[in-house]
Amino acid sequence: MDTFAARGYHNAPIQEIADRAGLTQAGVLHYFRTKAQLLTGVLELRDQSGIEQLGPDRPRGTEFLRHLVDTARRNAEREGIVRLYAVLSAESVTEDHPAQTYFRDRYTGLRAFVADALREAGGLAEDDARVEPAANAIIAVMDGLQVQWLLDPGSVDMAVSTELALDSLLTALAPDRFPAGG
Amino acid sequence: MDTFAARGYHNAPIQEIADRAGLTQAGVLHYFRTKAQLLTGVLELRDQSGIEQLGPDRPRGTEFLRHLVDTARRNAEREGIVRLYAVLSAESVTEDHPAQTYFRDRYTGLRAFVADALREAGGLAEDDARVEPAANAIIAVMDGLQVQWLLDPGSVDMAVSTELALDSLLTALAPDRFPAGG
Repeated sequence: MDTFAARGYHNAPIQEIADRAGLTQAGVLHYFRTKAQLLTGVLELRDQSGIEQLGPDRPRGTEFLRHLVDTARRNAEREGIVRLYAVLSAESVTEDHPAQTYFRDRYTGLRAFVADALREAGGLAEDDARVEPAANAIIAVMDGLQVQWLLDPGSVDMAVSTELALDSLLTALAPDRFPAGG
Repeated sequence: MDTFAARGYHNAPIQEIADRAGLTQAGVLHYFRTKAQLLTGVLELRDQSGIEQLGPDRPRGTEFLRHLVDTARRNAEREGIVRLYAVLSAESVTEDHPAQTYFRDRYTGLRAFVADALREAGGLAEDDARVEPAANAIIAVMDGLQVQWLLDPGSVDMAVSTELALDSLLTALAPDRFPAGG
Protein backbone atom coordinates (compact mmCIF):
# COMPACT_ATOMS: atom_id res chain seq x y z
CA MET A 1 0.00 0.00 0.00
CA ASP A 2 2.77 2.45 0.91
CA THR A 3 4.67 1.79 -2.31
CA PHE A 4 1.64 2.18 -4.57
CA ALA A 5 0.63 5.33 -2.66
CA ALA A 6 4.07 6.89 -2.90
CA ARG A 7 4.76 5.99 -6.53
CA GLY A 8 1.54 5.09 -8.32
CA TYR A 9 1.02 1.74 -9.97
CA HIS A 10 3.17 2.04 -13.08
CA ASN A 11 6.16 3.42 -11.23
CA ALA A 12 6.06 0.99 -8.29
CA PRO A 13 8.96 -1.51 -8.31
CA ILE A 14 7.98 -5.02 -7.23
CA GLN A 15 11.45 -5.29 -5.72
CA GLU A 16 10.66 -2.46 -3.27
CA ILE A 17 7.42 -4.14 -2.26
CA ALA A 18 9.27 -7.42 -1.77
CA ASP A 19 11.94 -5.72 0.37
CA ARG A 20 9.31 -4.09 2.59
CA ALA A 21 7.52 -7.40 3.04
CA GLY A 22 10.75 -9.29 3.76
CA LEU A 23 10.26 -11.47 0.69
CA THR A 24 12.13 -12.05 -2.55
CA GLN A 25 10.55 -10.78 -5.76
CA ALA A 26 9.81 -14.42 -6.67
CA GLY A 27 8.18 -14.79 -3.28
CA VAL A 28 5.82 -11.88 -3.90
CA LEU A 29 4.96 -13.27 -7.34
CA HIS A 30 4.25 -16.64 -5.78
CA TYR A 31 1.34 -15.10 -3.81
CA PHE A 32 0.30 -12.51 -6.42
CA ARG A 33 1.07 -13.78 -9.89
CA THR A 34 1.28 -10.33 -11.48
CA LYS A 35 1.76 -6.74 -10.39
CA ALA A 36 -1.84 -6.09 -11.43
CA GLN A 37 -3.06 -8.81 -9.06
CA LEU A 38 -0.96 -7.33 -6.28
CA LEU A 39 -2.69 -3.99 -6.84
CA THR A 40 -6.09 -5.64 -6.79
CA GLY A 41 -5.15 -7.31 -3.52
CA VAL A 42 -4.19 -3.98 -1.97
CA LEU A 43 -7.44 -2.34 -3.08
CA GLU A 44 -9.52 -5.20 -1.72
CA LEU A 45 -7.70 -5.03 1.61
CA ARG A 46 -8.34 -1.29 1.74
CA ASP A 47 -12.03 -1.83 1.03
CA GLN A 48 -12.47 -3.63 4.31
CA SER A 49 -11.88 -0.45 6.30
CA GLY A 50 -13.79 2.02 4.16
CA ILE A 51 -17.25 3.12 3.19
CA GLU A 52 -16.97 1.03 0.02
CA GLN A 53 -17.65 -1.98 2.17
CA LEU A 54 -20.95 -0.62 3.41
CA GLY A 55 -23.64 -2.96 2.21
CA PRO A 56 -27.37 -3.28 2.84
CA ASP A 57 -26.75 -2.64 6.55
CA ARG A 58 -25.08 0.71 6.00
CA PRO A 59 -26.46 3.76 7.78
CA ARG A 60 -29.25 5.48 5.83
CA GLY A 61 -30.27 9.00 4.96
CA THR A 62 -28.83 11.77 7.10
CA GLU A 63 -26.80 9.31 9.14
CA PHE A 64 -25.02 8.09 6.00
CA LEU A 65 -24.29 11.66 4.89
CA ARG A 66 -22.82 12.53 8.32
CA HIS A 67 -20.72 9.40 8.01
CA LEU A 68 -19.13 10.96 4.90
CA VAL A 69 -18.09 14.02 6.91
CA ASP A 70 -16.68 11.74 9.62
CA THR A 71 -14.74 9.89 6.93
CA ALA A 72 -13.25 13.16 5.68
CA ARG A 73 -12.26 13.99 9.28
CA ARG A 74 -10.69 10.58 9.88
CA ASN A 75 -8.88 10.77 6.54
CA ALA A 76 -6.82 13.69 7.81
CA GLU A 77 -5.28 11.16 10.24
CA ARG A 78 -4.41 8.54 7.61
CA GLU A 79 -2.45 10.11 4.84
CA GLY A 80 -1.30 6.78 3.41
CA ILE A 81 -4.78 5.60 2.52
CA VAL A 82 -5.77 9.02 1.18
CA ARG A 83 -2.66 9.08 -0.99
CA LEU A 84 -3.31 5.56 -2.24
CA TYR A 85 -6.82 6.41 -3.37
CA ALA A 86 -6.05 9.87 -4.75
CA VAL A 87 -3.15 8.59 -6.84
CA LEU A 88 -4.72 5.36 -8.04
CA SER A 89 -8.21 6.69 -8.81
CA ALA A 90 -6.81 9.34 -11.15
CA GLU A 91 -4.15 7.00 -12.59
CA SER A 92 -6.94 4.50 -13.31
CA VAL A 93 -8.19 6.66 -16.20
CA THR A 94 -4.92 6.04 -18.10
CA GLU A 95 -4.79 3.46 -20.89
CA ASP A 96 -5.18 -0.20 -19.90
CA HIS A 97 -4.85 0.52 -16.17
CA PRO A 98 -5.56 -2.63 -14.14
CA ALA A 99 -7.75 -0.74 -11.60
CA GLN A 100 -9.95 1.02 -14.16
CA THR A 101 -12.90 -1.34 -13.74
CA TYR A 102 -12.46 -1.32 -9.97
CA PHE A 103 -12.76 2.49 -9.79
CA ARG A 104 -15.56 2.72 -12.36
CA ASP A 105 -17.60 0.21 -10.35
CA ARG A 106 -16.69 1.89 -7.07
CA TYR A 107 -17.97 5.27 -8.27
CA THR A 108 -21.14 3.72 -9.68
CA GLY A 109 -21.85 2.17 -6.29
CA LEU A 110 -20.93 5.28 -4.29
CA ARG A 111 -23.08 7.53 -6.48
CA ALA A 112 -26.08 5.27 -5.92
CA PHE A 113 -25.49 5.14 -2.13
CA VAL A 114 -25.18 8.92 -1.83
CA ALA A 115 -28.19 9.53 -4.10
CA ASP A 116 -30.30 7.14 -1.99
CA ALA A 117 -29.18 8.89 1.19
CA LEU A 118 -30.03 12.33 -0.24
CA ARG A 119 -33.53 11.17 -1.21
CA GLU A 120 -34.13 9.68 2.22
CA ALA A 121 -32.67 12.62 4.12
CA GLY A 122 -34.54 15.21 2.08
CA GLY A 123 -37.78 13.34 1.51
CA LEU A 124 -37.19 13.76 -2.24
CA ALA A 125 -38.97 12.02 -5.09
CA GLU A 126 -37.27 9.15 -6.91
CA ASP A 127 -37.31 11.22 -10.14
CA ASP A 128 -35.98 14.48 -8.63
CA ALA A 129 -33.45 15.49 -11.29
CA ARG A 130 -31.22 17.33 -8.82
CA VAL A 131 -30.39 14.28 -6.72
CA GLU A 132 -27.87 12.59 -9.00
CA PRO A 133 -25.90 15.76 -9.82
CA ALA A 134 -25.82 16.53 -6.09
CA ALA A 135 -24.59 13.02 -5.26
CA ASN A 136 -21.87 13.26 -7.91
CA ALA A 137 -20.83 16.64 -6.50
CA ILE A 138 -20.58 15.33 -2.93
CA ILE A 139 -18.31 12.47 -3.97
CA ALA A 140 -16.31 14.82 -6.18
CA VAL A 141 -15.73 17.37 -3.45
CA MET A 142 -14.35 14.66 -1.14
CA ASP A 143 -11.99 13.39 -3.85
CA GLY A 144 -10.84 16.79 -5.02
CA LEU A 145 -10.10 17.95 -1.49
CA GLN A 146 -7.77 14.99 -1.02
CA VAL A 147 -5.41 16.11 -3.79
CA GLN A 148 -5.37 19.70 -2.50
CA TRP A 149 -4.77 18.47 1.06
CA LEU A 150 -1.94 16.11 0.09
CA LEU A 151 -0.17 18.98 -1.67
CA ASP A 152 -0.80 21.59 1.04
CA PRO A 153 -2.28 20.16 4.25
CA GLY A 154 -2.12 23.48 6.10
CA SER A 155 -4.46 25.18 3.62
CA VAL A 156 -7.23 22.60 3.39
CA ASP A 157 -9.55 21.21 6.07
CA MET A 158 -11.25 18.29 4.33
CA ALA A 159 -13.96 17.82 6.96
CA VAL A 160 -14.92 21.51 7.15
CA SER A 161 -15.16 21.88 3.36
CA THR A 162 -17.03 18.60 2.97
CA GLU A 163 -19.55 19.55 5.65
CA LEU A 164 -20.09 23.02 4.20
CA ALA A 165 -20.71 21.62 0.71
CA LEU A 166 -22.99 18.89 2.03
CA ASP A 167 -25.05 21.22 4.23
CA SER A 168 -25.39 23.73 1.40
CA LEU A 169 -26.60 21.08 -1.03
CA LEU A 170 -29.07 19.69 1.53
CA THR A 171 -30.52 23.17 2.09
CA ALA A 172 -30.77 23.69 -1.68
CA LEU A 173 -32.51 20.34 -2.23
CA ALA A 174 -34.74 20.22 0.86
CA PRO A 175 -35.00 23.64 2.53
CA ASP A 176 -38.00 22.52 4.62
CA ARG A 177 -35.95 19.81 6.36
CA PHE A 178 -32.57 21.57 6.24
CA PRO A 179 -33.25 25.29 6.68
CA ALA A 180 -30.46 27.76 5.95
CA GLY A 181 -28.10 28.20 8.89
CA GLY A 182 -29.63 25.15 10.55
CA MET B 1 0.08 16.28 -24.17
CA ASP B 2 -1.72 13.21 -25.52
CA THR B 3 1.00 10.86 -24.30
CA PHE B 4 1.19 12.31 -20.79
CA ALA B 5 -2.63 12.33 -20.62
CA ALA B 6 -2.94 8.71 -21.73
CA ARG B 7 -0.09 7.30 -19.63
CA GLY B 8 0.82 9.71 -16.87
CA TYR B 9 4.30 11.13 -16.49
CA HIS B 10 6.25 8.16 -15.18
CA ASN B 11 4.85 5.72 -17.70
CA ALA B 12 5.19 8.01 -20.75
CA PRO B 13 7.91 6.81 -23.18
CA ILE B 14 9.93 9.67 -24.71
CA GLN B 15 10.14 7.51 -27.84
CA GLU B 16 6.37 7.67 -28.30
CA ILE B 17 6.40 11.45 -27.91
CA ALA B 18 9.21 11.68 -30.44
CA ASP B 19 7.32 9.48 -32.91
CA ARG B 20 4.18 11.60 -32.61
CA ALA B 21 6.20 14.78 -33.15
CA GLY B 22 8.10 13.31 -36.12
CA LEU B 23 11.42 13.64 -34.29
CA THR B 24 14.05 11.26 -32.99
CA GLN B 25 14.39 10.81 -29.24
CA ALA B 26 17.64 12.81 -29.45
CA GLY B 27 15.73 15.50 -31.29
CA VAL B 28 13.15 15.81 -28.50
CA LEU B 29 15.92 15.96 -25.91
CA HIS B 30 17.64 18.67 -27.91
CA TYR B 31 14.65 20.97 -27.31
CA PHE B 32 13.73 19.68 -23.84
CA ARG B 33 16.78 18.43 -22.03
CA THR B 34 14.92 16.07 -19.72
CA LYS B 35 11.56 14.38 -19.56
CA ALA B 36 10.73 16.61 -16.58
CA GLN B 37 11.37 19.72 -18.69
CA LEU B 38 9.17 18.30 -21.43
CA LEU B 39 6.35 17.92 -18.90
CA THR B 40 6.85 21.47 -17.67
CA GLY B 41 6.65 22.67 -21.27
CA VAL B 42 3.36 20.84 -21.79
CA LEU B 43 1.86 22.31 -18.62
CA GLU B 44 2.96 25.83 -19.54
CA LEU B 45 1.46 25.44 -23.01
CA ARG B 46 -1.80 24.27 -21.45
CA ASP B 47 -1.85 27.25 -19.13
CA GLN B 48 -2.25 29.61 -22.03
CA SER B 49 -5.73 28.32 -22.77
CA GLY B 50 -7.06 27.94 -19.24
CA ILE B 51 -8.26 29.86 -16.25
CA GLU B 52 -4.81 29.48 -14.69
CA GLN B 53 -3.69 32.22 -17.04
CA LEU B 54 -6.26 34.68 -15.72
CA GLY B 55 -4.37 37.55 -14.15
CA PRO B 56 -5.35 40.91 -12.72
CA ASP B 57 -7.72 41.44 -15.67
CA ARG B 58 -9.73 38.31 -14.95
CA PRO B 59 -13.48 38.62 -14.51
CA ARG B 60 -14.50 39.36 -10.92
CA GLY B 61 -17.13 38.23 -8.47
CA THR B 62 -20.15 36.47 -9.90
CA GLU B 63 -18.78 36.71 -13.43
CA PHE B 64 -15.68 34.76 -12.40
CA LEU B 65 -17.78 32.08 -10.70
CA ARG B 66 -19.99 31.69 -13.81
CA HIS B 67 -16.78 31.36 -15.80
CA LEU B 68 -15.98 28.26 -13.74
CA VAL B 69 -19.29 26.67 -14.76
CA ASP B 70 -18.57 27.57 -18.40
CA THR B 71 -15.16 25.93 -18.03
CA ALA B 72 -16.78 22.74 -16.74
CA ARG B 73 -19.15 22.82 -19.72
CA ARG B 74 -16.34 23.38 -22.24
CA ASN B 75 -14.25 20.66 -20.59
CA ALA B 76 -16.82 18.07 -21.66
CA GLU B 77 -15.72 18.87 -25.23
CA ARG B 78 -11.99 18.49 -24.62
CA GLU B 79 -11.27 15.18 -23.00
CA GLY B 80 -7.54 15.33 -23.70
CA ILE B 81 -6.94 18.39 -21.55
CA VAL B 82 -9.21 17.09 -18.79
CA ARG B 83 -7.35 13.79 -18.79
CA LEU B 84 -3.98 15.54 -18.71
CA TYR B 85 -4.90 17.58 -15.65
CA ALA B 86 -6.77 14.84 -13.81
CA VAL B 87 -3.91 12.36 -14.22
CA LEU B 88 -1.02 14.73 -13.58
CA SER B 89 -2.52 16.66 -10.65
CA ALA B 90 -3.05 13.44 -8.69
CA GLU B 91 0.25 11.89 -9.84
CA SER B 92 1.98 15.07 -8.66
CA VAL B 93 1.51 14.04 -5.02
CA THR B 94 3.81 11.03 -5.54
CA GLU B 95 7.43 11.18 -4.39
CA ASP B 96 9.74 13.57 -6.23
CA HIS B 97 7.24 14.28 -8.99
CA PRO B 98 8.50 17.07 -11.28
CA ALA B 99 5.09 18.81 -11.37
CA GLN B 100 4.52 18.86 -7.61
CA THR B 101 5.50 22.52 -7.15
CA TYR B 102 3.56 23.47 -10.28
CA PHE B 103 0.33 21.97 -8.92
CA ARG B 104 0.84 23.22 -5.36
CA ASP B 105 1.30 26.78 -6.67
CA ARG B 106 -1.60 26.38 -9.09
CA TYR B 107 -4.00 25.40 -6.30
CA THR B 108 -2.76 28.19 -4.04
CA GLY B 109 -3.51 30.69 -6.80
CA LEU B 110 -6.87 29.18 -7.74
CA ARG B 111 -8.02 29.07 -4.11
CA ALA B 112 -7.22 32.77 -3.71
CA PHE B 113 -9.02 33.67 -6.97
CA VAL B 114 -12.16 31.75 -6.03
CA ALA B 115 -12.14 33.09 -2.46
CA ASP B 116 -11.87 36.66 -3.78
CA ALA B 117 -14.73 36.03 -6.20
CA LEU B 118 -16.92 34.60 -3.43
CA ARG B 119 -16.32 37.63 -1.21
CA GLU B 120 -17.12 40.03 -4.03
CA ALA B 121 -20.15 38.11 -5.26
CA GLY B 122 -21.59 37.68 -1.78
CA GLY B 123 -20.55 40.97 -0.25
CA LEU B 124 -18.73 39.01 2.44
CA ALA B 125 -16.20 40.26 4.99
CA GLU B 126 -12.51 39.60 4.45
CA ASP B 127 -12.45 37.53 7.64
CA ASP B 128 -15.58 35.44 6.95
CA ALA B 129 -14.35 31.98 7.98
CA ARG B 130 -16.64 30.17 5.54
CA VAL B 131 -15.09 31.69 2.40
CA GLU B 132 -11.90 29.65 2.19
CA PRO B 133 -13.54 26.27 2.88
CA ALA B 134 -16.16 27.14 0.25
CA ALA B 135 -13.48 28.12 -2.29
CA ASN B 136 -11.59 24.87 -1.64
CA ALA B 137 -14.82 22.92 -2.09
CA ILE B 138 -15.63 24.60 -5.43
CA ILE B 139 -12.22 23.76 -6.87
CA ALA B 140 -12.45 20.26 -5.43
CA VAL B 141 -15.83 19.54 -6.94
CA MET B 142 -14.56 20.52 -10.40
CA ASP B 143 -11.50 18.28 -10.05
CA GLY B 144 -13.34 15.31 -8.58
CA LEU B 145 -16.01 15.41 -11.28
CA GLN B 146 -13.31 15.10 -13.93
CA VAL B 147 -12.15 11.70 -12.69
CA GLN B 148 -15.75 10.41 -12.43
CA TRP B 149 -16.54 11.76 -15.91
CA LEU B 150 -13.43 10.26 -17.52
CA LEU B 151 -14.36 6.84 -16.12
CA ASP B 152 -18.07 7.07 -16.95
CA PRO B 153 -19.03 10.06 -19.10
CA GLY B 154 -22.66 9.01 -19.44
CA SER B 155 -23.26 9.21 -15.68
CA VAL B 156 -21.71 12.60 -14.91
CA ASP B 157 -22.59 16.07 -16.21
CA MET B 158 -19.70 18.20 -14.96
CA ALA B 159 -21.40 21.55 -15.68
CA VAL B 160 -24.71 20.64 -14.02
CA SER B 161 -23.02 19.32 -10.86
CA THR B 162 -20.60 22.26 -10.70
CA GLU B 163 -23.42 24.79 -11.05
CA LEU B 164 -25.57 23.05 -8.44
CA ALA B 165 -22.72 22.99 -5.93
CA LEU B 166 -21.76 26.60 -6.66
CA ASP B 167 -25.32 27.92 -6.42
CA SER B 168 -25.91 26.00 -3.19
CA LEU B 169 -22.75 27.40 -1.61
CA LEU B 170 -23.60 30.95 -2.72
CA THR B 171 -27.06 30.65 -1.15
CA ALA B 172 -25.52 29.30 2.05
CA LEU B 173 -22.93 32.09 2.25
CA ALA B 174 -25.04 35.04 1.03
CA PRO B 175 -28.76 34.20 1.08
CA ASP B 176 -29.69 37.88 0.72
CA ARG B 177 -27.97 38.14 -2.66
CA PHE B 178 -28.50 34.54 -3.78
CA PRO B 179 -31.90 33.47 -2.45
CA ALA B 180 -32.84 29.78 -2.55
CA GLY B 181 -34.18 28.72 -5.94
CA GLY B 182 -32.98 32.01 -7.41
